[in-house]
Amino acid sequence: MSDHYQIYLKFKKKIDDILFNMIKNEQPVTLYEPINYLLSSGGKRIRPILVIFSCEAAGGDPDKSINAAVAVELLHNFTLVHDDIMDNADTRRNLQTIHKKWNENVAILTGDHLIGLAYKYLFKTDTQRLKETADSFTEGIIEVCEGQSYDKEFEDRNDVTLDEYIMMINKKTAKMLETSAAIGALTGNVDTEMLSNLKNFALNIGLAFQIQDDMLDIMADENELGKKIGGDILERKKTFLLIKAIETISNETDKRLIMDICQNSELGITSEIIENVKEVYIKNGIIESAKAEIINYTLKADEYLNNIKDTNSRNRLKWFSGMLMERKF
Amino acid sequence: MSDHYQIYLKFKKKIDDILFNMIKNEQPVTLYEPINYLLSSGGKRIRPILVIFSCEAAGGDPDKSINAAVAVELLHNFTLVHDDIMDNADTRRNLQTIHKKWNENVAILTGDHLIGLAYKYLFKTDTQRLKETADSFTEGIIEVCEGQSYDKEFEDRNDVTLDEYIMMINKKTAKMLETSAAIGALTGNVDTEMLSNLKNFALNIGLAFQIQDDMLDIMADENELGKKIGGDILERKKTFLLIKAIETISNETDKRLIMDICQNSELGITSEIIENVKEVYIKNGIIESAKAEIINYTLKADEYLNNIKDTNSRNRLKWFSGMLMERKF
Repeated sequence: MSDHYQIYLKFKKKIDDILFNMIKNEQPVTLYEPINYLLSSGGKRIRPILVIFSCEAAGGDPDKSINAAVAVELLHNFTLVHDDIMDNADTRRNLQTIHKKWNENVAILTGDHLIGLAYKYLFKTDTQRLKETADSFTEGIIEVCEGQSYDKEFEDRNDVTLDEYIMMINKKTAKMLETSAAIGALTGNVDTEMLSNLKNFALNIGLAFQIQDDMLDIMADENELGKKIGGDILERKKTFLLIKAIETISNETDKRLIMDICQNSELGITSEIIENVKEVYIKNGIIESAKAEIINYTLKADEYLNNIKDTNSRNRLKWFSGMLMERKF
Repeated sequence: MSDHYQIYLKFKKKIDDILFNMIKNEQPVTLYEPINYLLSSGGKRIRPILVIFSCEAAGGDPDKSINAAVAVELLHNFTLVHDDIMDNADTRRNLQTIHKKWNENVAILTGDHLIGLAYKYLFKTDTQRLKETADSFTEGIIEVCEGQSYDKEFEDRNDVTLDEYIMMINKKTAKMLETSAAIGALTGNVDTEMLSNLKNFALNIGLAFQIQDDMLDIMADENELGKKIGGDILERKKTFLLIKAIETISNETDKRLIMDICQNSELGITSEIIENVKEVYIKNGIIESAKAEIINYTLKADEYLNNIKDTNSRNRLKWFSGMLMERKF
């Protein structure tokens, strides 16, 4: 195992310890039980690790960015809970979603409360640059809401272009990674040039990450993914794959299947249909296109990384993006 | 019309101007349309005015607290949108609620986005005491979520005591008024003693305000109230009135009606039943008890106000609490 991986594990444990022990025997139970359930359910802690590594890259003491890292993870969990309501998701990390295990009201309040907790931890951060940090964090929330709104709007549209898709995932996914890098770097009292490099690195990694997410939704192993395969198809989500399929597939039978998913709201989407879509995607090179796009954004991210002079930080972040791109879930 | 009223109107207009013009032609429409609809639907702007008057009382320039005032109003509107989903409310300020006019997903995202916008305006505030301000604001969000959770929990319980009720409205309603006073005062660079007086004044006003709200839910004119009379009864809310009725009414017929509302979830609550409950409340002195409690908390608030030496500020805040207590909706 690499040194980077060991360091990742060390900081992941610090984050987990805070998240697992954040809430003990607090009242009201209808609020704190679901929050505990959620925060204890695991996760790769990608965003907080990016906060910590960015702080280090900026020359700061990574331990000083732990509270900001926890803040970002809490914010990420807020988006999961509310998105799961909107997307009718039954499971997450192999567990029932909050609105299924409890109810929608509990899930709404759990998400709201997580935003409050996120800011609480953010403001615990020992930093000279509190206003910049708070502004970046807040911009992250605003854009993630915009991104989720576009995502829902696009479900009802069949003319979504790839440019619109990129704009949407920029807000919905990539922005939060950019924010993670920014607040970590600010905690490390970053200079302007380095801040720009780290933000752009994270943004491009975020775009690659979301396209990969779209791909894993249909290509991953269900147990590893921790939720049902084909959830995006069930929700008629305009993923990279679906848009690319609409734009490029000319074979009549294959095209009909894809357009049926988009246009026929009466169509009950069975696991057989999902399996057929998967075959259509593979056969028509859609999966390969997605892979090429992931590599494309990863290379862009690397360019920004190459501007970082400190070898150790550069390698650490390169390892980090490599780990993300190798994930199977 | 009093001088205070004129000043209230002047600042209310400044707040409204910012809220009405905050969002123009922004994308995505599914997010910004409902936000515009909500922010343009009026309201008394009680919380932002309390921010401004508290800043003034602390010796600050009230105009410097406008952004913080807007932040509090945005946060208040977030609670309205999400609470309306949870409480199945059809109308608010004589308009359809967001989840009825659009749908639940739109309402969830609208609320989330309003939290982001609220922080955005908070951080625009020109203050030397940003961390204290941010901490107070965040504590407000966290407690309002806790309060709403208790409120929902209490709907399923019939043994809620008045003490528990006061604890709940403290979090759900009074805390946000305390926060308003605190962040206004901090913007005015308040000293410790004055901060404590202003917070306690606001907290007690908040308790009086919520008990009055409970009373208006059944006693107000429907048009003036802007929503259906008896909404709390429909939702089996443990209001001051209902708890007091459970605790004190001995007449068998009257008691049966009250317990039926609490225990019989099959009971379809008609406007006739709501009218009967109103009569029971009046006949058994429940309304008078509520009025006495409102006066009780208003007097407590006054005690803290009397510690304020500056006559103009003291009178302004006294006028403000008087205005709140005279409201018919």
